[in-house]
Amino acid sequence: MRIADMTWRQVESYLRRDDRAVLPIGSTEQHAGLSLATDIILAARVALEAAEPLGVPVFPGLVYGITPTFRAYPGTISLKVETMLRLVGDVLDSLAGQGFRRVLIVNGHGGNAPVLGFLAEWLATHPKVQVRLHNWWNAPRTWAQVQATDPIASHASWMENFPWTRVLGEPVPKGAKPMIDPERLRLMAPEAARAYLGDGNYGGRYGRPDREMLAIWKVAVEETQDLIENGWL
Amino acid sequence: MRIADMTWRQVESYLRRDDRAVLPIGSTEQHAGLSLATDIILAARVALEAAEPLGVPVFPGLVYGITPTFRAYPGTISLKVETMLRLVGDVLDSLAGQGFRRVLIVNGHGGNAPVLGFLAEWLATHPKVQVRLHNWWNAPRTWAQVQATDPIASHASWMENFPWTRVLGEPVPKGAKPMIDPERLRLMAPEAARAYLGDGNYGGRYGRPDREMLAIWKVAVEETQDLIENGWL
Amino acid sequence: MRIADMTWRQVESYLRRDDRAVLPIGSTEQHAGLSLATDIILAARVALEAAEPLGVPVFPGLVYGITPTFRAYPGTISLKVETMLRLVGDVLDSLAGQGFRRVLIVNGHGGNAPVLGFLAEWLATHPKVQVRLHNWWNAPRTWAQVQATDPIASHASWMENFPWTRVLGEPVPKGAKPMIDPERLRLMAPEAARAYLGDGNYGGRYGRPDREMLAIWKVAVEETQDLIENGWL
Amino acid sequence: MRIADMTWRQVESYLRRDDRAVLPIGSTEQHAGLSLATDIILAARVALEAAEPLGVPVFPGLVYGITPTFRAYPGTISLKVETMLRLVGDVLDSLAGQGFRRVLIVNGHGGNAPVLGFLAEWLATHPKVQVRLHNWWNAPRTWAQVQATDPIASHASWMENFPWTRVLGEPVPKGAKPMIDPERLRLMAPEAARAYLGDGNYGGRYGRPDREMLAIWKVAVEETQDLIENGWL
Amino acid sequence: MRIADMTWRQVESYLRRDDRAVLPIGSTEQHAGLSLATDIILAARVALEAAEPLGVPVFPGLVYGITPTFRAYPGTISLKVETMLRLVGDVLDSLAGQGFRRVLIVNGHGGNAPVLGFLAEWLATHPKVQVRLHNWWNAPRTWAQVQATDPIASHASWMENFPWTRVLGEPVPKGAKPMIDPERLRLMAPEAARAYLGDGNYGGRYGRPDREMLAIWKVAVEETQDLIENGWL
Amino acid sequence: MRIADMTWRQVESYLRRDDRAVLPIGSTEQHAGLSLATDIILAARVALEAAEPLGVPVFPGLVYGITPTFRAYPGTISLKVETMLRLVGDVLDSLAGQGFRRVLIVNGHGGNAPVLGFLAEWLATHPKVQVRLHNWWNAPRTWAQVQATDPIASHASWMENFPWTRVLGEPVPKGAKPMIDPERLRLMAPEAARAYLGDGNYGGRYGRPDREMLAIWKVAVEETQDLIENGWL
Repeated sequence: MRIADMTWRQVESYLRRDDRAVLPIGSTEQHAGLSLATDIILAARVALEAAEPLGVPVFPGLVYGITPTFRAYPGTISLKVETMLRLVGDVLDSLAGQGFRRVLIVNGHGGNAPVLGFLAEWLATHPKVQVRLHNWWNAPRTWAQVQATDPIASHASWMENFPWTRVLGEPVPKGAKPMIDPERLRLMAPEAARAYLGDGNYGGRYGRPDREMLAIWKVAVEETQDLIENGWL
Repeated sequence: MRIADMTWRQVESYLRRDDRAVLPIGSTEQHAGLSLATDIILAARVALEAAEPLGVPVFPGLVYGITPTFRAYPGTISLKVETMLRLVGDVLDSLAGQGFRRVLIVNGHGGNAPVLGFLAEWLATHPKVQVRLHNWWNAPRTWAQVQATDPIASHASWMENFPWTRVLGEPVPKGAKPMIDPERLRLMAPEAARAYLGDGNYGGRYGRPDREMLAIWKVAVEETQDLIENGWL
Repeated sequence: MRIADMTWRQVESYLRRDDRAVLPIGSTEQHAGLSLATDIILAARVALEAAEPLGVPVFPGLVYGITPTFRAYPGTISLKVETMLRLVGDVLDSLAGQGFRRVLIVNGHGGNAPVLGFLAEWLATHPKVQVRLHNWWNAPRTWAQVQATDPIASHASWMENFPWTRVLGEPVPKGAKPMIDPERLRLMAPEAARAYLGDGNYGGRYGRPDREMLAIWKVAVEETQDLIENGWL
Repeated sequence: MRIADMTWRQVESYLRRDDRAVLPIGSTEQHAGLSLATDIILAARVALEAAEPLGVPVFPGLVYGITPTFRAYPGTISLKVETMLRLVGDVLDSLAGQGFRRVLIVNGHGGNAPVLGFLAEWLATHPKVQVRLHNWWNAPRTWAQVQATDPIASHASWMENFPWTRVLGEPVPKGAKPMIDPERLRLMAPEAARAYLGDGNYGGRYGRPDREMLAIWKVAVEETQDLIENGWL
Repeated sequence: MRIADMTWRQVESYLRRDDRAVLPIGSTEQHAGLSLATDIILAARVALEAAEPLGVPVFPGLVYGITPTFRAYPGTISLKVETMLRLVGDVLDSLAGQGFRRVLIVNGHGGNAPVLGFLAEWLATHPKVQVRLHNWWNAPRTWAQVQATDPIASHASWMENFPWTRVLGEPVPKGAKPMIDPERLRLMAPEAARAYLGDGNYGGRYGRPDREMLAIWKVAVEETQDLIENGWL
Repeated sequence: MRIADMTWRQVESYLRRDDRAVLPIGSTEQHAGLSLATDIILAARVALEAAEPLGVPVFPGLVYGITPTFRAYPGTISLKVETMLRLVGDVLDSLAGQGFRRVLIVNGHGGNAPVLGFLAEWLATHPKVQVRLHNWWNAPRTWAQVQATDPIASHASWMENFPWTRVLGEPVPKGAKPMIDPERLRLMAPEAARAYLGDGNYGGRYGRPDREMLAIWKVAVEETQDLIENGWL
């Protein structure tokens, strides 16, 4: 259930019988020939498909994340780490104040990793609340399915090319790109990073058959759903 | 055009011929029997309908805003003022760094007013960029249309009850509520505010005929579009 | 009573019988041919004249405010929004810690508007305290009196030209200035704003007879006094 | 010359021939039987008497300072250290942006000492500006005069009892108080500090003849004036 | 070479021929029966042994890190994420200002991971500087050697038990502890975490023969040294 | 006892019988021909020699401090004032949370003075904890011994030249330097400061016989020890 489809009374009623919530977070950033919103599209969708059958509400997602390295790619928006942590902290403060006790943050963007460190800090002052960060794409089962499909998988490669992240009229390039070296990339400022990355794909093919993608998606939804049900103390 | 439907190359190409962008901002908060996401639903939609015919891209909207007074209503998320200003500042920094020079922020939430004060501060260090905050619902022409329709219009009243903010199965209450006193409300902490506001409507009827609502919407879209076209130095 | 004319024992004694306080806030910024301190002079004076007959203490005023747009005018001091909010927050924390429960902030500067948004945030964690922001010059009765006197009234125009904001030897220009467009001004960085505003008056005459000014003043003091007495829950 | 008595054009004209400014800073806090505003009254007055004959403008003073230890005394307002440093930083940024190059901060409150450390940080990024913090009361010549008058001198003792810090109708206690131990005081939270300090005087007599006070004042004004004239590189 | 064994002239002289520096960071936190300073002891030592033969200076290490989950263990000091990031940022700003262009941060504490995200942000405004975060203990070659020695290796287990992290007179427990579940731990506030972790070891034996430990150490020093030499663009 | 030589259980056991801790703080900055780490070397060592016989634990020291004026000297690292205060605040929060009630901060760097102001703020919200800042080098008895040895003593002069701050192979210059004017220095940005200070010594001889230095050291250790024992309420 999307919070956007609920009234406050419905949330109040829900909180009498349950205390879970899901919060998708992502990024708006270059994804080669895919949508600039790929990370939040995928996180929000996997969250919703997993939570809806359980009747757990999904809050509106955080569409911007931490992605300074891509700033030279037009359309990329990067938050400072401090901004992102404060944003997540404020959302959690509101949720905790209303009685939510188990929050699954479904993350679609690797650069949001500092949120994980912040959660430990936040939990230290909210001992009754559990918050879990779930990187949906590299959680164990999903990642295994990705690897089984094609071991060369990366940012903006086939692995993020789902029917719902494609941009109308944008052709899928043929062939595969050799993997970039992530350690080299980490040393680069935005202009250098863009020169190094070119179209933005980190490596691998640009697309794979929908049948394979939907198989991955199914695993990801199930794994996320399993966490919403069982991923708690 | 939604940035979510674009690749970075398309944005780069756009920036060679234009330098405008639209950013919707809103809030997730109680709206009586309407969607908790009413403010961002309306801001994002009016922004998109106004910008799309002009070919100006609309960035993903900020779904959370400043709304401490509603914190006792479940489902309401409130950002600290500092968090909101930093968030807006980071987004503008990214936009300015890529060549956007005219940004219309379409705001759907009165509580986000401190953003207006912050924009002057941000502009003082970015003399080549223009950023304009547009409260779509109380801009002159739209407000006149609202007043002509029914002068008792307020937060969570009929005035925000559009086909796209209604919640499935939630009946529209009959009758009208007397206007609350906004000055009294401002003195209240969240619990007192909730006791005072009851269902959350600030006053007026709960709904009006779609024909009237669509007439208001048409004015709002046109007024917003006019600003995207002509609201610059 | 000015806090500056009191000892701590007198404040302690006052707090045994009352819990109200008044805090003027303003700005130091260009006011065309009027004093750079116009905003705080007026706010502090209206506050004192209103509070003194009631025996309510007036704290020393905040002489600097948020005014980035005027930074190109020598003598203008602008605080960042965050600084101003923290400053107000610290003052309120001290007041609340000592037992003040009703605080009227008498504001003389439109640019301080983000304080209003911050108060809601502050009140959410101080449910026993009421804080009210009063823009003395555009409160309903005062503004009506201004409009009845001369409908073209603005920043640094006749409307702020009182015997106590005039600068010795500075002549009052003849004639009236056409109103500037505030929406255009909002898009401007400091240098552009100065070029646009010229002497700094936003529009209207530069002075009016003292008789008229004192009539406005009388209304403003009464309206402010009424709030100190009755403006609470 | 007080900035409050000037227009922006007068400041602009001044900046064509000089680049100095004076900024008084103080505190609003318990001063035993003296005015709660003692620190800013004295700093602002010594600043003005010193600067006026030189034609150097004195900006409105910062009336609140860092004084957490006195928070249990009603009427005391304490800023957080961060707030005070940002406040001073914002004021200096505005001054530097308009062409001021030599700023004397006349400080009336010992607790504002962290400002000194911050100035070094600020200067490191403003190599063309000189800012000097002057504790008027313990500068060498003034302190020598104080000591020559009565070596037992302290916060809220006779040493701050000037005709302009006395509170009407407040009698000057007879006798002298033994000096408190400042190192013990530093270990105390507000309640303990108040229990320890009693009326608030740190030690010494409560008043001395005006003749002696005016002699000290004369030295203080001269010493401050000397710094405005000669205290630069 | 330790900066602590150098004068500023020696650093200046070094900067004429090289631009690399090493900065160890760690934590002071529970390590079961090992030193509370284990993380910084190991990071600083591996850094020094790697850098010294190359003549690259090692700056004094950051002894405190981000470790909120261990706060219920006496002797543990935890920094807020923001504090840690600002600390690292200030150190890097100083280094960059003096001409260092390649900085290897040798990290000994997993909880410091948010620093990695911050580095991308810092680099985005310092395009001429390269900064690399090196988790010495789980870098590829060192981790392979750890795994080859004993695959059950974790926080405060044998894997951190070196001659230089042992505490005098503290016996090494016999036997091995089953691995804790890190995902469960992440959901816990400090008190729950302590109840769950008991002595603090995450799993595995408490010690292994020095011969094995020194073999791991050798690999770690070589791998770190290799990065100082070759780990740059 | 150094915390680095303790396990968490030993600290827990200690806290059952005592509640004191010692925290050295210093700086890494130019010290003419002495070690860049002079300030933290001396603070940490005097702290340890004083605390160890009393069985009071010494926490790892803060190696970086506030020293913007020396930023043009290679090897100097300066923290922003805010960073330093947050760092100290976080350490104190952790200590207080575990039951420490009396903390002596042994400071080796004059530029860290803003910490003193911050402690009053921190104590105001921690009324059960005592924290004392001890500038070991200018505490009364130590300073008297310094003055009795040679009244011209300053930063980076003989007064900081101990066997443990000398740099191998760095000769001690003959002769003495005239004292610089600290008030002039305070007005200078880093480049000007370096031009003014030359080698970095503020004035006086560069070294004195070890016999004299050890006599000063003995006084310093005793004075520090006396505070650990008796410097509390």
